[in-house]
Amino acid sequence: MTSPHSPDHSTGPADDRDPKAELAALRQSIDNIDMALVAMLAERFRCTQEVGKLKARYNMPPADPAREKRQIARLRQLASDARLDPDFAEKFLNFIISEVIRHHEAIARDKNGQSSC
Amino acid sequence: MTSPHSPDHSTGPADDRDPKAELAALRQSIDNIDMALVAMLAERFRCTQEVGKLKARYNMPPADPAREKRQIARLRQLASDARLDPDFAEKFLNFIISEVIRHHEAIARDKNGQSSC
Repeated sequence: MTSPHSPDHSTGPADDRDPKAELAALRQSIDNIDMALVAMLAERFRCTQEVGKLKARYNMPPADPAREKRQIARLRQLASDARLDPDFAEKFLNFIISEVIRHHEAIARDKNGQSSC
Repeated sequence: MTSPHSPDHSTGPADDRDPKAELAALRQSIDNIDMALVAMLAERFRCTQEVGKLKARYNMPPADPAREKRQIARLRQLASDARLDPDFAEKFLNFIISEVIRHHEAIARDKNGQSSC
């Protein structure tokens, strides 16, 4: 058994650095990236809210399977190019799309409630 | 009943525009944002893979509940500032973290497999 803070590999540039400092530096990068992800997600939902209002106004269906199929294929390719697991990218897009559809259905319900009740 | 392409609201700036062109413009923005999200996610996983290797090297536990609690509180605040649903932001972070922990466990398994089998 090694102690929790003893390196048990002798090679690699990381071994020259304090592991706690290295962990803190990586976590700072992760926190910065998360800030960017939140900003991008907020902007994406602003766009999809507009799509939702447009679809409700013109009575278009909330889901669009052909568009989703193209989005998934494109995202898998982008993920592959960026060395991100394409299966994870697809799961991620499905996670986002299910939230978007939930929003669109709520917009359509609100609209129908206003016009028919 | 209105036809699928007839506006049934008479106000709002969107009514002056072709709805198909407006939908295409919004979808172009969504596609651009998705490209940025994939790049950010790929970079985030590069960081967490490094964290995973570091944790495996120094026998640190894969999960860190105190760090996760701070991350969730921070992300909820960032989401709120960006007008993104904080509950969704938390669900999103949990979705990412569960994938990260899966990676870290795999790294730890690989390491143990190499050193003890």
